Amino acid sequence: MYQLLGGMRVVEGSSFIAAPSCGLYLAQLGAEVIRFDMIGGGPDFNRWPQAPGGASLYWEGLNKGKKSIAIDLSSPEGRELAVALIAAPGEERGIFLTNFPAAGFLSHERLSKSRPDLITLRVMGHADGTPAVDYTINSAVGIPQMTGPATLGEEPVNHVLPAWDLVTGAYAAFALLAAERCRRGTGRGQEVRIPLSDVAAASLGHLGQIAETSISGADRARYGNNLFGAFGKDFLTRDGRRLMIVAITTRQWTGLVAALGIAAQIKALEAQAGLSFDRDEGTRFRFREPLNAIVAGAVAARDHDALARAFDANGVCWGPYRTLHQALAEDAAFSTANPVFAMVDHPSGHSYLTPGAAATFGGGERSPPVRAPRLGEHTDAILAEVLGLSSGQIAALHDRKVVAGAEATA
Amino acid sequence: MYQLLGGMRVVEGSSFIAAPSCGLYLAQLGAEVIRFDMIGGGPDFNRWPQAPGGASLYWEGLNKGKKSIAIDLSSPEGRELAVALIAAPGEERGIFLTNFPAAGFLSHERLSKSRPDLITLRVMGHADGTPAVDYTINSAVGIPQMTGPATLGEEPVNHVLPAWDLVTGAYAAFALLAAERCRRGTGRGQEVRIPLSDVAAASLGHLGQIAETSISGADRARYGNNLFGAFGKDFLTRDGRRLMIVAITTRQWTGLVAALGIAAQIKALEAQAGLSFDRDEGTRFRFREPLNAIVAGAVAARDHDALARAFDANGVCWGPYRTLHQALAEDAAFSTANPVFAMVDHPSGHSYLTPGAAATFGGGERSPPVRAPRLGEHTDAILAEVLGLSSGQIAALHDRKVVAGAEATA
Repeated sequence: MYQLLGGMRVVEGSSFIAAPSCGLYLAQLGAEVIRFDMIGGGPDFNRWPQAPGGASLYWEGLNKGKKSIAIDLSSPEGRELAVALIAAPGEERGIFLTNFPAAGFLSHERLSKSRPDLITLRVMGHADGTPAVDYTINSAVGIPQMTGPATLGEEPVNHVLPAWDLVTGAYAAFALLAAERCRRGTGRGQEVRIPLSDVAAASLGHLGQIAETSISGADRARYGNNLFGAFGKDFLTRDGRRLMIVAITTRQWTGLVAALGIAAQIKALEAQAGLSFDRDEGTRFRFREPLNAIVAGAVAARDHDALARAFDANGVCWGPYRTLHQALAEDAAFSTANPVFAMVDHPSGHSYLTPGAAATFGGGERSPPVRAPRLGEHTDAILAEVLGLSSGQIAALHDRKVVAGAEATA
Repeated sequence: MYQLLGGMRVVEGSSFIAAPSCGLYLAQLGAEVIRFDMIGGGPDFNRWPQAPGGASLYWEGLNKGKKSIAIDLSSPEGRELAVALIAAPGEERGIFLTNFPAAGFLSHERLSKSRPDLITLRVMGHADGTPAVDYTINSAVGIPQMTGPATLGEEPVNHVLPAWDLVTGAYAAFALLAAERCRRGTGRGQEVRIPLSDVAAASLGHLGQIAETSISGADRARYGNNLFGAFGKDFLTRDGRRLMIVAITTRQWTGLVAALGIAAQIKALEAQAGLSFDRDEGTRFRFREPLNAIVAGAVAARDHDALARAFDANGVCWGPYRTLHQALAEDAAFSTANPVFAMVDHPSGHSYLTPGAAATFGGGERSPPVRAPRLGEHTDAILAEVLGLSSGQIAALHDRKVVAGAEATA
């Protein structure tokens, strides 16, 4: 946790990954993020992975450092409370983060009647409001057809990382700060819409892939674990460890050649082909079959530890293949030796290694990440502090089951 | 292009994907982004994919809307120019975006001597400065071992999307605006460091995967194209089209059951198992084998078009599998019907569908995306406007080959 965004308040009505991760990033830089949910939890409240007791490790991972209020959003009174919360006054307030439908009581048009300078950041599936999630976006832009070994033929391979969700969440946090910066200058609020489908399409454009396919008239082939356009592939060591080795820059390539002692073989290949692999990563890609064979032979002749030492001494860009469980066991980056992480007790009852902000700010003090709230943990405090309700009014809302505290889902 | 960040100036010295994409996002919201490069281009200047003439479609995709100055960074005079550019005065200036080494003449410590309130946003591989790229990070956190069909055994599958680069780039843009917001309040600059490895590790923590693996003591298995923890998989239609179908929410699931007319089969399975699939996506995942069989049978009995109509009428979350080439041919989201896109003429000599900002800002006018500069296209203008050099001084720099214009690489 940092305090860079201290003073800013964001109200979040959201589910799944993209919008909650945006709120998480804001909270971990010091914004006050108030998440409202249905009493009993929204559609993502029990999402897998779960702890043995059934608590969602996913939910408590994506909602760290936020405050929680539980409201019956199916009741008119509950909806009014949500609107009042979103539109509450104050200079750094009036920011609504959501992935809920663009029409209805949480439409920007309606909400901005209560607060004209409201900023609404709306994460969407498709721009027209039809549903989409990471997997359905990914299949529709051609990534699964490029992923995996060519031996799979036509069989697509979905990547399991919710990459489009994560990109969208981070980009949404950026867009939200841009809109807030603009409001500081102009006083004007606005709705910002970020459909997953536009993030995916724009990203493929930014990476040159739309141009590539448009100009060539063909799709990029499936290259398995070969890094497109440069040298890079997985290789097995003599003691059976698998490494990813990449050489994008000249320095990485010459370092690899030196570390493996394959200069003579490479020179012979260069002489035969009448070119040099030093300067042009594209040439390394075109000649990947003979180059892979040379590197594979050299890697297979040595053990992991010797290779690791030689690689690091020569500035080689490489990484081990290992599972997350192995990474947790052996990599200091996944430990409290890394200031990003701390051991934190969570609502699930479990204590585990927990990340704060992925960025390290030299100008600020990093304090440990804060656990997610229990659902409704801050209901009364938010009603009192943000909406100025009296304890009698709050008690009446509980009696009418318009709101609930943490005990309701404990 | 939007003008939200108009007035802000960012100097970028960068290569590859993460840092340049951060600069791209800033430029597409109106910031002035000045990219400096070695004369002849940095290590990413010719990166694949390339146009038939050899121009990098990748470089011109990631540097849209930026200005370019070409400097001989190996000469002391060229280095001085770069430092002067980074440290140039002005209220919304003094922001440096880079992935260059943290030590040396572009260290924050040295640069901030010229401008104490400088903000340096430094994208890194590992936090200790050792090199890493998307592929070597990904192999080390266990994603390739979870990706792809279980039939592949131990063979890892790298995902081809540079997901960690893209997440890091967007998160960097967010962190940069947070640091700039903080500077506006306090007057203080700082260095912000964002290692790819920390972004990956933190993301897996946020998604609950570190908790899952820590608590269970085991890695998540390889589930092929099944969506972990919910219902989701690829299915083949009668006419041989492949669809991704997902049901995370109750509404998506009941919509799918209705659209496929499989209520009786599902009810029979529910009766047999003594549970309901409506409310709990985790139950749908646990019973994925019989559920997949029922859905596969119903999808295989119908043609794509009929299914698409039924799915859309019932709010089903689905997407086609198609290649990028097919998407460009058939999806209006990849066309100028989508305001994110415009046809743009590029330095490569090609005109193609080009994305602007993935976010749509309701409060601002969207103007078409601006092409990338030719290398050195703005050298003279930047030297004159930012550094106040006379035309005589600029000519002398050219004569001494300290700088170059666009003609040098044309």
